[in-house]
Amino acid sequence: MPAVTYELIKQCPVTGARAGKLHTPHGTFDTPMFMPVGTQGTVKTLSPEELKKMGAGVILGNTYHLFLRPGHDIVKKAGGLHRFMNWDGGILTDSGGFQVFSLGDLRKISEEGVSFRSHLDGSKQFLSPEKAMEIQMDLGADVAMAFDECTPYPADYEYACASMRLTSRWARRCQAAHDRPDQALFGIVQGGMYKDLRRESAETLVEMDFPGYAIGGLSVGEPKPMMYDLLEHTTPFLPKDKARYLMGVGTPDCLVEGVARGVDMFDCVFPTRVARNGTGLTSRGRIVIRNASYAEDFGPLDPECDCYTCQNYSRAYLRHLIRCDEIFGLRLMSLHNLHYLIGLMRRIRASIIEDRFAQFQQNFWLDFAE
Amino acid sequence: MPAVTYELIKQCPVTGARAGKLHTPHGTFDTPMFMPVGTQGTVKTLSPEELKKMGAGVILGNTYHLFLRPGHDIVKKAGGLHRFMNWDGGILTDSGGFQVFSLGDLRKISEEGVSFRSHLDGSKQFLSPEKAMEIQMDLGADVAMAFDECTPYPADYEYACASMRLTSRWARRCQAAHDRPDQALFGIVQGGMYKDLRRESAETLVEMDFPGYAIGGLSVGEPKPMMYDLLEHTTPFLPKDKARYLMGVGTPDCLVEGVARGVDMFDCVFPTRVARNGTGLTSRGRIVIRNASYAEDFGPLDPECDCYTCQNYSRAYLRHLIRCDEIFGLRLMSLHNLHYLIGLMRRIRASIIEDRFAQFQQNFWLDFAE
Repeated sequence: MPAVTYELIKQCPVTGARAGKLHTPHGTFDTPMFMPVGTQGTVKTLSPEELKKMGAGVILGNTYHLFLRPGHDIVKKAGGLHRFMNWDGGILTDSGGFQVFSLGDLRKISEEGVSFRSHLDGSKQFLSPEKAMEIQMDLGADVAMAFDECTPYPADYEYACASMRLTSRWARRCQAAHDRPDQALFGIVQGGMYKDLRRESAETLVEMDFPGYAIGGLSVGEPKPMMYDLLEHTTPFLPKDKARYLMGVGTPDCLVEGVARGVDMFDCVFPTRVARNGTGLTSRGRIVIRNASYAEDFGPLDPECDCYTCQNYSRAYLRHLIRCDEIFGLRLMSLHNLHYLIGLMRRIRASIIEDRFAQFQQNFWLDFAE
Repeated sequence: MPAVTYELIKQCPVTGARAGKLHTPHGTFDTPMFMPVGTQGTVKTLSPEELKKMGAGVILGNTYHLFLRPGHDIVKKAGGLHRFMNWDGGILTDSGGFQVFSLGDLRKISEEGVSFRSHLDGSKQFLSPEKAMEIQMDLGADVAMAFDECTPYPADYEYACASMRLTSRWARRCQAAHDRPDQALFGIVQGGMYKDLRRESAETLVEMDFPGYAIGGLSVGEPKPMMYDLLEHTTPFLPKDKARYLMGVGTPDCLVEGVARGVDMFDCVFPTRVARNGTGLTSRGRIVIRNASYAEDFGPLDPECDCYTCQNYSRAYLRHLIRCDEIFGLRLMSLHNLHYLIGLMRRIRASIIEDRFAQFQQNFWLDFAE
């Protein structure tokens, strides 16, 4: 029995949407789920208690960042990432692949792995499938991710194919190196924007029998309809009894459309990053709180929201804090945005359970304002 | 009956220390007290609930900053500063005098008031005793402060004398302009580093019969023994049945020595400012958490502390957060430092009540490490 299992509860009869449960060593969590990102061992600005209260189940940690600082050895000595950061819910660590590939000219890929220079001090570093496993086993998350190459967009067929096959060979090395029974290792489907490559990637990984599958290399600059189309042609090749995780995707519209295509898990820095710039995600669309129109608006950020921010503070106060670069403003905006997305996932799930997701999806688009 | 009154509970038989209660429209609070500073309508990084939990009673707001941003008219429309910032405890607003005088070349003093340029946009502004009262009445704190000139250090006798007398004339104009029965107006004793001027200032203000008195213009660069000496020669000229507030002072040693000389209230940005630089105030002295020696230190910041930070996080984690400029690190350090100072005041008060303050003071200095 793997450390992490997926239980399918309900399948939408119209779309690919599904409601389920993710069982992990740190609890069982409802899917579809949005996972807040805690890159450096903290979900920016927020406490674990605040995350718990808004219903966050699994949060992300980042192999690349924690490897460089404070170092996985220190996190291990602290008793693992859960204990280090005081979070007793689920944790998923990404493999560092995406961050390393984001370094551009600072990295060099070979069959063995990737050599790169630290964005912090320029020091020479090396990550390989085996090293990514060593780090993630030390961090001790509930879910570790295979080390992959995130194929850039655009990429020609040849590059996307070679890159995807490298990711598959690395996935096999990850599986061989991974040796922690209380941690699940998920494979990552790549293949660029080519449906047949996505299918080959999915089928290859499924044959390796991972306890869960991520879809990587999407939301990297391609138009949204292209992403939706690729998702539609990828999830059918993944087993129904395993969790599916769409990496780096977290705008409300993409969450709804991802779920419609059979995705169970999402993560993205989007809600917390825009929060710190003063953008609120609300039931009535995005609100740029710096706008002068909110200077004397003493109503809540989102009138339909029951979060701490909306229950206790006005748009005028939030605007004041954000204009003054006050940290409490960043907290209040981040808290609201994550609360909003987690609430959206809860409503999506309820609609699947109650056999009305297709209607939910339709209504969402009627109301949606970017 | 003034809006704010002081009740003397116990007088130390050896020193000038006293324990009392400050009754305000927003509750009754124990003295001696340390007031966290919320310059721009927020105590940096912290929520009102976190401040409540650590036992903060009265917090500070800043006339100069709130006048410039968001504007006192907006705070008034929001229902006052308490409601604007969601704080139902006590608030004291300083008069803006200190900030305006800190502007240096950007301001010009006359009998009428001070013209200055905003540090935000360079716009021309003017503050006078009457304007400072108008702003503070709009902000609606429990305690407003008279508009004063904070005499610089060093200042020759002539300058300090003229400056102190200007502050006294302004205090009279503040009193005449102040017209809010649910708000107390405190006078501010000035006089530079000259004992006879401090006495003249105190006697002049006492004759005007304010409901409380601040001692301003100390901790502005003079040696600490000089400050202690001046305090010792000022508080005896203040009435026993009114609160005494030493402005801008908040290091542990100065709190103990201020209390010993009859001070009831203190405020300072010190604990929150050094927290954001990664310095922790602890029962064993200051801890610079960035130091490499804490990299693998999995014990709490202060082993004797029962705050949220010390109960849940290690020095290694705090060091990691501060090195990464993570906001949660600023929160945890700020929370601890304020908790520590407020706890120190609680222990000081208990020692006065139990007739052992002189011993407490002696022990404090035996343990004290800057």
